[in-house]
Amino acid sequence: MLGNFTYCNPTKLYFGDKALDNLKTELAKYGKKVLLTYGGGSIKKTGLYDQIIAILNEAGKEIIELPGVMPNPTSDKLIEGADLARKHEVDFILAVGGGSVIDYAKAVSVSAWCNDNPWEKYFLRMEDVDNKIIPIGCILTMVGTGSEMNGGSVITNHEQKLKIGHVFGENVFPKFAILNPVLTYTIPQYQMIAGFYDIMSHILEQYFSGTDDNTSDYLMEGLLKSLIHSSRIAVKDPQNYEARSNIMWIATWALNTLVAKGKSTDWEVHMIGQAVGAYTDATHGMTLSAVSLPYYRHIMPYGLAKFKRYAVNVWDVNPDGKSDEQIAEEGLKRMEEYMREIGLVMSIKELGATEDMIEGIADATFILTGGYKTLSKPEIIDILKQSM
Amino acid sequence: MLGNFTYCNPTKLYFGDKALDNLKTELAKYGKKVLLTYGGGSIKKTGLYDQIIAILNEAGKEIIELPGVMPNPTSDKLIEGADLARKHEVDFILAVGGGSVIDYAKAVSVSAWCNDNPWEKYFLRMEDVDNKIIPIGCILTMVGTGSEMNGGSVITNHEQKLKIGHVFGENVFPKFAILNPVLTYTIPQYQMIAGFYDIMSHILEQYFSGTDDNTSDYLMEGLLKSLIHSSRIAVKDPQNYEARSNIMWIATWALNTLVAKGKSTDWEVHMIGQAVGAYTDATHGMTLSAVSLPYYRHIMPYGLAKFKRYAVNVWDVNPDGKSDEQIAEEGLKRMEEYMREIGLVMSIKELGATEDMIEGIADATFILTGGYKTLSKPEIIDILKQSM
Repeated sequence: MLGNFTYCNPTKLYFGDKALDNLKTELAKYGKKVLLTYGGGSIKKTGLYDQIIAILNEAGKEIIELPGVMPNPTSDKLIEGADLARKHEVDFILAVGGGSVIDYAKAVSVSAWCNDNPWEKYFLRMEDVDNKIIPIGCILTMVGTGSEMNGGSVITNHEQKLKIGHVFGENVFPKFAILNPVLTYTIPQYQMIAGFYDIMSHILEQYFSGTDDNTSDYLMEGLLKSLIHSSRIAVKDPQNYEARSNIMWIATWALNTLVAKGKSTDWEVHMIGQAVGAYTDATHGMTLSAVSLPYYRHIMPYGLAKFKRYAVNVWDVNPDGKSDEQIAEEGLKRMEEYMREIGLVMSIKELGATEDMIEGIADATFILTGGYKTLSKPEIIDILKQSM
Repeated sequence: MLGNFTYCNPTKLYFGDKALDNLKTELAKYGKKVLLTYGGGSIKKTGLYDQIIAILNEAGKEIIELPGVMPNPTSDKLIEGADLARKHEVDFILAVGGGSVIDYAKAVSVSAWCNDNPWEKYFLRMEDVDNKIIPIGCILTMVGTGSEMNGGSVITNHEQKLKIGHVFGENVFPKFAILNPVLTYTIPQYQMIAGFYDIMSHILEQYFSGTDDNTSDYLMEGLLKSLIHSSRIAVKDPQNYEARSNIMWIATWALNTLVAKGKSTDWEVHMIGQAVGAYTDATHGMTLSAVSLPYYRHIMPYGLAKFKRYAVNVWDVNPDGKSDEQIAEEGLKRMEEYMREIGLVMSIKELGATEDMIEGIADATFILTGGYKTLSKPEIIDILKQSM
């Protein structure tokens, strides 16, 4: 465990098929005006919307609706939500949806009472929050981002071709998260699988960094093995409660700050994937899957010991009689087979990226320094070409 | 992940060799009167006591001292502490020590304003807390119990020959815990090693239960592998910061409620070990190590699949060409070798237990039902005899 750090995660999780029963008790802790935010309206088709409205009414809340949160929430939508929250002086924000909706709720939470342009202050300039924060809670309908138990919030500005994440402090974390695995059954297969890879990438991007012996790496190997096991079941049987509930739990713990504690982390795959997303508006998890293997094959020589450990501990590669390179490469090969098996997109071309975008995507990619190799722009271009 | 459950752990952890720097900021959140509780005075020898007193003085606190907390805190000591806390109307309890001191601080926290006999109400009758709770914080000097981030509190009544744990709710959890691995360097080797097995037992007693596929089991395999790795280093080189810091972190996460979520748990080794402790006053971790293998060998046939998984995933047993029983037994054999290697006590006789105590220890053992086999009294007697 490296350095000095603080761990605090006060989000209360209600897990299970009856988790929604706890919503009314939680709502009682906050004021009358609730901003209800959600996505494209699928929650109306499934009946969840009606259930939530009934609970809000029973709890005597005044409901201000903010629907239409898009998969990659935009800075324009953020301004709309912040204006609405301020105008109604809402006491609480209830987010119903996947990571995008919860990310968006956090951004609105800190932006409503911000006297500056919140996109510029909190995303472009990454400043600390110094204004009133509206408490939020969430009901998760799609897993992947871990947004239900962390301070992460990603907002896209189409005009500037930028997709930027800010990790807010624990005062912006959801106060509670309702995690009912059954609510995740209805999302389309493509989105479900993309979510699985988002989870995997969260774990890998924290795993592939550092050379010390760290308990977090052992925890991540456990999370990866459980995810690989359950996702293989879920792609064939999406309504398998055991598989879906394990995946929901893994997603939360993959990105609620725990496994990053006391170690360095990478996150370059997310940087490249987000840049691809800003150009193509493709599903987040698929932008990550499409660029991952070219990225990992590129950095493998710089973190060979960890890639070898990954092959043996996660993919059960038998190391006997093989060189470190061979072991590491066999691990990535098994990972590739798994990715193809569960139906992940393995090419950014399939996501709508074209050759003429590559320069721009590379320019839009933030270069981080926590991984085994700090990339140059030509290296990013090379990885993007390998990902075509 | 089985059933419906709630996860909430609000304890703030400050980790690292400079963690104590955060004490003053935390103390500022509470009132003037601080009850400072600690054990036998080793913190005076190490200089930690003086450091803490200086910080308390700087923070303008009035200090009420409550030293002399014994390794197995007694119900008499609990009454003494509760009376003192009430008499001085303390605002906060600062516990400095290992699990015993923190367990004790929690017991005092709920007992000071209890109108009943707290031993009877909270330990014998296990009632919910319905009186004022005094907030506590802790500075950990010995790892093992996980008490720094949970609601557990074990109190011993010598007259009644009972050692009972109550798991209190999150309102009794320490508000903060200061985890500086360097502070754990000074404890004697015997206590250190006992703590290592206490951690291992916490993990195993949650692991050896249930037949479902559960992410918690994968996380526990990770914690176990990290613990085995680091403890082997620490017994030879107790001042190895990397090893000791990993062990400190593992101890916290082994028993802060996370890995028990969504699964059944056992805890029978703790029940037997605590009964041994009530008769011998032996070090907690050693009572567990002395009874564990006879217990696990006894229940193995009833949970064979899990014991096989344990052998393969934790002890790297090669399963090729072996029966499930052979694989499982080889896992326990490797565990035994490891236990002897790091210097654990493998016999209750060595801890002071005598043949004539066995009947009484068996009677004092609570029988739980979460494990692979609910024990009868003759089975407990048999396990105790095997442990002699």
